[in-house]
Amino acid sequence: MVMTQQMRVGVLGAGGLGRGMAQLCAQRNDIRLVAMADSQAYAFDAQGLDPLAVADCSTLLDVAGAVPSADSIIDLLKAHGSQIDGLFMALPNLPVTFYAETVQMILNETGYKGVMVDALKRTKAVEAMLGLKDQIRDRGMVYITGCGATPGFLSTAAAVAAQSFVEVTEVKIWFGVGVACWEDYKATIREDFLHMPGFTADQVYAMTDADIEAELAKHNGLLELHHMEHADDLLLEMAGVCSRDRVTVGGLVDTKSPNKPVSTTVTITGRTMSGKTGSHTFTLSDATTMVDNVCGPALGFLRAGHLLQADAKSGLFASTQVMPVYTLASVSLPAVAV
Amino acid sequence: MVMTQQMRVGVLGAGGLGRGMAQLCAQRNDIRLVAMADSQAYAFDAQGLDPLAVADCSTLLDVAGAVPSADSIIDLLKAHGSQIDGLFMALPNLPVTFYAETVQMILNETGYKGVMVDALKRTKAVEAMLGLKDQIRDRGMVYITGCGATPGFLSTAAAVAAQSFVEVTEVKIWFGVGVACWEDYKATIREDFLHMPGFTADQVYAMTDADIEAELAKHNGLLELHHMEHADDLLLEMAGVCSRDRVTVGGLVDTKSPNKPVSTTVTITGRTMSGKTGSHTFTLSDATTMVDNVCGPALGFLRAGHLLQADAKSGLFASTQVMPVYTLASVSLPAVAV
Repeated sequence: MVMTQQMRVGVLGAGGLGRGMAQLCAQRNDIRLVAMADSQAYAFDAQGLDPLAVADCSTLLDVAGAVPSADSIIDLLKAHGSQIDGLFMALPNLPVTFYAETVQMILNETGYKGVMVDALKRTKAVEAMLGLKDQIRDRGMVYITGCGATPGFLSTAAAVAAQSFVEVTEVKIWFGVGVACWEDYKATIREDFLHMPGFTADQVYAMTDADIEAELAKHNGLLELHHMEHADDLLLEMAGVCSRDRVTVGGLVDTKSPNKPVSTTVTITGRTMSGKTGSHTFTLSDATTMVDNVCGPALGFLRAGHLLQADAKSGLFASTQVMPVYTLASVSLPAVAV
Repeated sequence: MVMTQQMRVGVLGAGGLGRGMAQLCAQRNDIRLVAMADSQAYAFDAQGLDPLAVADCSTLLDVAGAVPSADSIIDLLKAHGSQIDGLFMALPNLPVTFYAETVQMILNETGYKGVMVDALKRTKAVEAMLGLKDQIRDRGMVYITGCGATPGFLSTAAAVAAQSFVEVTEVKIWFGVGVACWEDYKATIREDFLHMPGFTADQVYAMTDADIEAELAKHNGLLELHHMEHADDLLLEMAGVCSRDRVTVGGLVDTKSPNKPVSTTVTITGRTMSGKTGSHTFTLSDATTMVDNVCGPALGFLRAGHLLQADAKSGLFASTQVMPVYTLASVSLPAVAV
């Protein structure tokens, strides 16, 4: 099967990631951004939205033709779901069950049955999503969970790297993130606080932006995070790579500089056939941003989900079980089987 | 779908790679080695061969119950093909069309319709295989080509890594290989000569082992290979990552030491959304051998092919289009869709 048409993509959420995805769509001629929704409105155009216009506006209400709605996701999918091949979920994830509840609502209140991917981070959030697997399969939907950078890009690379070993003893993800302006990534930085000692989800949820900012100032804008509850553990277990206790995720987030305080790496350690221990390392370019490493892979998983659906597959998949699909304008579009 | 049974695997060829695969099977309880064939005989046992016994014998004729045959592959598959889920092709690849001719023979003379994977290296060899795509699909077979280290493991890692970039400008594979005893890898080392200046396929095919050894001695056992004709280029093009002229493969082979003269790396360079240029790097552990990085991934692709076939898919796939499947004894067996 050869994909010859643009994939029609919708983005749910218009924070840093959602806007980043819109900007990325502007540079990808295999993708047509047809829909975007925020908390106040949705915008839809079957011929394609202007991705840079939706990325730049302060609210979707300002976009020409946008439909004001306090229930924008449901209203969008009821009206236009059949014209959207795939959805990228770029919503805030507080509380931890918010994505699962949103997908449950989509299942209950709309007939949407395209592809969906999320960039969830927390293990508990992905676990909540697993509870929907039967409904997702029965609807004929393909849902791929954990399609961001970590989990997603890095855990999928780890699942490939694992192949050299007869036993994987440790997968260690250590990331560096630099954000020039923390306010562009409020939701993400808030989530990071969940991994700092002494903060509970309820506390973080109750903090004002000023509270977050004051807390950041205490640490000179640098957050060092260890043993984060990241779903890379669950997703690598689902792919059969190793049990989840062998996966650790941590890193450094600099909220005062766009430069990464450390290069992002994933180190896959295992036992070889001859009984030796060795580590493969995948190191990301410092020139790539969180948006590059979240939105690019998310699009690759969306395209992979589209191919799965074209093959009459449905169900809930872990990103680690799916080869993301890359399509360049300069080469013929990819065929799963030639 | 959940795989609950061992996959029954046959190995065609009993050189360094074929024997390495047998040794690996001994450590993988998700795989049962049921068949092996060399130029003089085949061995088959539905309950499983003793992998270490077949890896150690000087000829399969010495294995208890082996069947002498000058046409061992065809005779094996005619007699027992329906009891073999997947085949790893570990044959010498001189001339360059030998694999394609062998698969054509299997299609013509046997009813085999399981999974097949190869560890082909040369672009022309994979191109010859592509000519069989319609026959492979019509037979209901799943054939995954280029499932070794390079192409295969490294090019698949590159296809994942590509996801961060809006354009991939270069994929550079630079490998280090150390072999203690070149005679264990005669066929592979011979193929390397095809990439040395001044050697044609006909010349290499005509060289005796003594000729090869004399040539190696001239270079103190170290072969430096540049711009090798490796199918990573074709396979990354098939996956839509970049046009084949952007992929280069080279490296250092030390034929006098088991230690790698340089760490094996794949560097994926591309343009980011914001217009910057960056490179991701995947570096292999020096503790992993050619067998670890060829046979481990080949098993991962065999299992992936088995899952594709269970989903009623058939056809010829590039390794770069397929997520290899890893299964550890210590965790529950993987489900493609949960």
